[in-house]
Amino acid sequence: MNNYSKARVAIAGATGYAGRELARLLARHPGARVEAALDSTAGVEAALAADPDFVFLATPAEVSTAWTAALRAAAHPPRIVDLSGAFRFDPGVVYGWPERNRAAIRDAALVSNPGCYATAANLALGPLVTAGVIETSDIICDAKSGASGAGRGLRQDLHFCELEANCRAYHVYAHRHAPEIARHCGLDAATFAFTPHLLPTSRGILATLYVRLRGDDLAGAYARAYIGHPFVRLRGDQLPELNDVNHTNFCDIGWKVRADGRQAVIVSCLDNLLKGAAGQAVQNFNLMSGWPEETGLA
Amino acid sequence: MNNYSKARVAIAGATGYAGRELARLLARHPGARVEAALDSTAGVEAALAADPDFVFLATPAEVSTAWTAALRAAAHPPRIVDLSGAFRFDPGVVYGWPERNRAAIRDAALVSNPGCYATAANLALGPLVTAGVIETSDIICDAKSGASGAGRGLRQDLHFCELEANCRAYHVYAHRHAPEIARHCGLDAATFAFTPHLLPTSRGILATLYVRLRGDDLAGAYARAYIGHPFVRLRGDQLPELNDVNHTNFCDIGWKVRADGRQAVIVSCLDNLLKGAAGQAVQNFNLMSGWPEETGLA
Amino acid sequence: MNNYSKARVAIAGATGYAGRELARLLARHPGARVEAALDSTAGVEAALAADPDFVFLATPAEVSTAWTAALRAAAHPPRIVDLSGAFRFDPGVVYGWPERNRAAIRDAALVSNPGCYATAANLALGPLVTAGVIETSDIICDAKSGASGAGRGLRQDLHFCELEANCRAYHVYAHRHAPEIARHCGLDAATFAFTPHLLPTSRGILATLYVRLRGDDLAGAYARAYIGHPFVRLRGDQLPELNDVNHTNFCDIGWKVRADGRQAVIVSCLDNLLKGAAGQAVQNFNLMSGWPEETGLA
Amino acid sequence: MNNYSKARVAIAGATGYAGRELARLLARHPGARVEAALDSTAGVEAALAADPDFVFLATPAEVSTAWTAALRAAAHPPRIVDLSGAFRFDPGVVYGWPERNRAAIRDAALVSNPGCYATAANLALGPLVTAGVIETSDIICDAKSGASGAGRGLRQDLHFCELEANCRAYHVYAHRHAPEIARHCGLDAATFAFTPHLLPTSRGILATLYVRLRGDDLAGAYARAYIGHPFVRLRGDQLPELNDVNHTNFCDIGWKVRADGRQAVIVSCLDNLLKGAAGQAVQNFNLMSGWPEETGLA
Repeated sequence: MNNYSKARVAIAGATGYAGRELARLLARHPGARVEAALDSTAGVEAALAADPDFVFLATPAEVSTAWTAALRAAAHPPRIVDLSGAFRFDPGVVYGWPERNRAAIRDAALVSNPGCYATAANLALGPLVTAGVIETSDIICDAKSGASGAGRGLRQDLHFCELEANCRAYHVYAHRHAPEIARHCGLDAATFAFTPHLLPTSRGILATLYVRLRGDDLAGAYARAYIGHPFVRLRGDQLPELNDVNHTNFCDIGWKVRADGRQAVIVSCLDNLLKGAAGQAVQNFNLMSGWPEETGLA
Repeated sequence: MNNYSKARVAIAGATGYAGRELARLLARHPGARVEAALDSTAGVEAALAADPDFVFLATPAEVSTAWTAALRAAAHPPRIVDLSGAFRFDPGVVYGWPERNRAAIRDAALVSNPGCYATAANLALGPLVTAGVIETSDIICDAKSGASGAGRGLRQDLHFCELEANCRAYHVYAHRHAPEIARHCGLDAATFAFTPHLLPTSRGILATLYVRLRGDDLAGAYARAYIGHPFVRLRGDQLPELNDVNHTNFCDIGWKVRADGRQAVIVSCLDNLLKGAAGQAVQNFNLMSGWPEETGLA
Repeated sequence: MNNYSKARVAIAGATGYAGRELARLLARHPGARVEAALDSTAGVEAALAADPDFVFLATPAEVSTAWTAALRAAAHPPRIVDLSGAFRFDPGVVYGWPERNRAAIRDAALVSNPGCYATAANLALGPLVTAGVIETSDIICDAKSGASGAGRGLRQDLHFCELEANCRAYHVYAHRHAPEIARHCGLDAATFAFTPHLLPTSRGILATLYVRLRGDDLAGAYARAYIGHPFVRLRGDQLPELNDVNHTNFCDIGWKVRADGRQAVIVSCLDNLLKGAAGQAVQNFNLMSGWPEETGLA
Repeated sequence: MNNYSKARVAIAGATGYAGRELARLLARHPGARVEAALDSTAGVEAALAADPDFVFLATPAEVSTAWTAALRAAAHPPRIVDLSGAFRFDPGVVYGWPERNRAAIRDAALVSNPGCYATAANLALGPLVTAGVIETSDIICDAKSGASGAGRGLRQDLHFCELEANCRAYHVYAHRHAPEIARHCGLDAATFAFTPHLLPTSRGILATLYVRLRGDDLAGAYARAYIGHPFVRLRGDQLPELNDVNHTNFCDIGWKVRADGRQAVIVSCLDNLLKGAAGQAVQNFNLMSGWPEETGLA
């Protein structure tokens, strides 16, 4: 590998928690050379001055929208991976779910990286809906997340003394990731209950899902879906925990079926800053630039 | 108040987490004098030697069973509050749920103090089932607890380095508090999903419950049920968090109703060592001995 | 006790961490009635409108200075307990160190409550200097504190994700409590090394002090000094830890002497919000108003 | 790099915290192939059966002593890196301090890896003693460590509920790393005060050292000593914190000099499981086997 074959990349929002992970991952990636690492307030000209092949946007949605318009209008438009929520409902934009949309991601000019909670839920629910082994209505996702998911911005409830030893639910029936999950998995959005909780720790998402079963092949549906997908680890009835996945790009999935075979509890775990954000962005970059999917993520 | 009117009390299991809280609460209670504070390995004779009016058992179930038999056979049998699971399914024993069984507790010779998770769930579900405002099948209780609920005994998964920054589900479809809740609330046990999780903190339970609504008077059912019950605080749509209840004997309950009015998410919070164990035991003691229910718990 | 004998009190800065503890302690104090609990931005008129007998200032130093001037100029000047650093070096103001200045505090119109670190260090060093059993030069105080000592204000380094699992020294040779300790204990300020550290927890101070011994009666000096002082517990060679003192008004002190008898390591622990702030303020209020020193602090 | 050039390695004690890190580091090391990862109770035959070139002992001292004797007596004795305290005072064994003993380590048959606290202190003190810029008597090292330094074994004080939010000093004037530091740095052991403290976190050591200065070239002494040593980062007056070094093999050192120039406070930080144990063991292995010192540690 020599430098000539490295993609020139720029990162916007490189001082946030996801942006810093992205900068760290790309700095050691054999196929990337970070030409610019900018904070969210920088002008898009600063990124264009680096003549990038790729731009990663770890910025608020409104910044991503503005930057994307400007980048697309450039003389040599770079390809874009956007980590914000700006384009997750846009039918003209490829949703960066590698286990589902691998082919489309390879050719995309703009990839919309899924939300952290959405990644944990999508990977648990997607194959089951596709295989028709669960009902798509009345699904419940009770999710628990570390505080880094809320970002580095200062908020009273993220002050150390407020969160230490605490736990709380928030945005019940109102979190923006709920319609994202419903749309991309094909759930009945009106009856999908998504309840995020803040944990007294920094990192990791553990989503506990409750689904009604049709048929008895949940395990088979998972097994078939994840052949050849290196970052999903099926754990069977060994339920995963945060320590299994933090600081990795893995999403671990385990489950238990109710005695009558009509309900399952599924636990899906990932590191919200890696598989839930920066790691998945690099996974998408690997697909877009022709590198093996695990490159820089082992 | 003078000493002559104080009940003589003995505590078995006084070195465990619940037992220590009990010893602390009773030491400052105007109606109790702690004559013996014993660990779980002491012989029942050590308690009887103190000639107690009341014995609190903060001991494993098998110890509670053995002690109860011996105490009942004594010349002057003391009244007993048992914090273990030994008698929670015994139809001849009063279940120490003060908000439900106040009258029976007053006269009981033996009170079986509810489990910590069970208290959080019972207080959230009991009035709704009684009022007929929820379906009793397919109820989901996704509960999160601090580590003190697992006790002081040494276990690898409770080593500081194993639990810090971690979160995990355990005993899915298999926790002993699930049948306890189903029985005392009148749920369909076969379809009740109870999923406890361990939080990276010491103290507190936050239970997130998912119920299907019949009619629209959830708030009214709660309001009517908890008139005159000082330790349940109804929070409406202000969902409670651990910090609201830790180090108190309160159980706080809040809820959100789905847009179509057919489902609710209920959050019930309490301190597992107080309202979930020692505090509720003192509340039962107050009823048994004629003291106002809040005595020693403010 | 009836209401007529209760002092009318106002609290400024009642929304900060120390102010909240103060409001909590005074709300249950038999000798106080909280007439006004104001935040730091309120005007002094709001406090005066309550016609207070006592005003507690849990405010920044500049607010304390302005309020004190205004309160003293009022028609009926209230007595003041100031928790800020505004008056800790003012020779005309009584320094609220109850174990040292009990008599002066009783009659004071204005009491300057010591800093949290200063209280831990003063109680460890004061009696030793007075008794002449340690050298007053080259004393080292390596102190560790929970984050609540830094207050509720938003700062990047107090974001949950920045402090979790972290530890750092700060303000080395430059913390404002160092000259406060040196002055009130009679140390050689030029050679006093005070090194505060931030711990990944909310609450408590553990100060480790290194002193050079003169003579061999360190234990005796402590024992004589603390007769009749209920909030200092001498632990001998059983060194105290944060859990021994948090949520109490105690300062626990333990020590070890080097084999050659020429140096000692002293560990002094307290809850920075109680004995280090609000608890000590109430202790001072008790002295000022004639209540037993422990009232409301047990 | 092909497999033929990889050293065959065995790890004893691979289930402890340091052993697990070692297994993780060696698994991805280009110059090692882990042939056996055994727990501390395995017999030495299990290691010898793997025909190892190198054996790493992450075992208690008495196990290390017994294994070392057996390994040396083998037909083809492997080279050994011992992480226990068994040989740290043995004049015939090379002390695995790469920044000091690089040449001797290269040729050693047995390397004794320094203790975690000792590494933090040695790197801060060693160059200063050698350069004669500090007094060697009355040195103070106030050290703070995460709980993983105490190992995975079950102990009441390492139960999550006992350590959360706590901090305590232990083994004052009596920790086994104190004479290790004194010996290898050339301190006056009788007047060296080493005070370890347990922090409410898993990982990392922050040592705060107090030294008396001779001359004014502390910075120069450090700068000269660490030229060409990749794992020591001199931070000047920017004092390092745990988050700067955790999950890396770096030891970061910063300092402040007292106004009169006669004392300095030095802060030395490292990850106790990496630079303080497994990382340094790999660094020694790199020297012993001819790989660049940073291999597998970046």
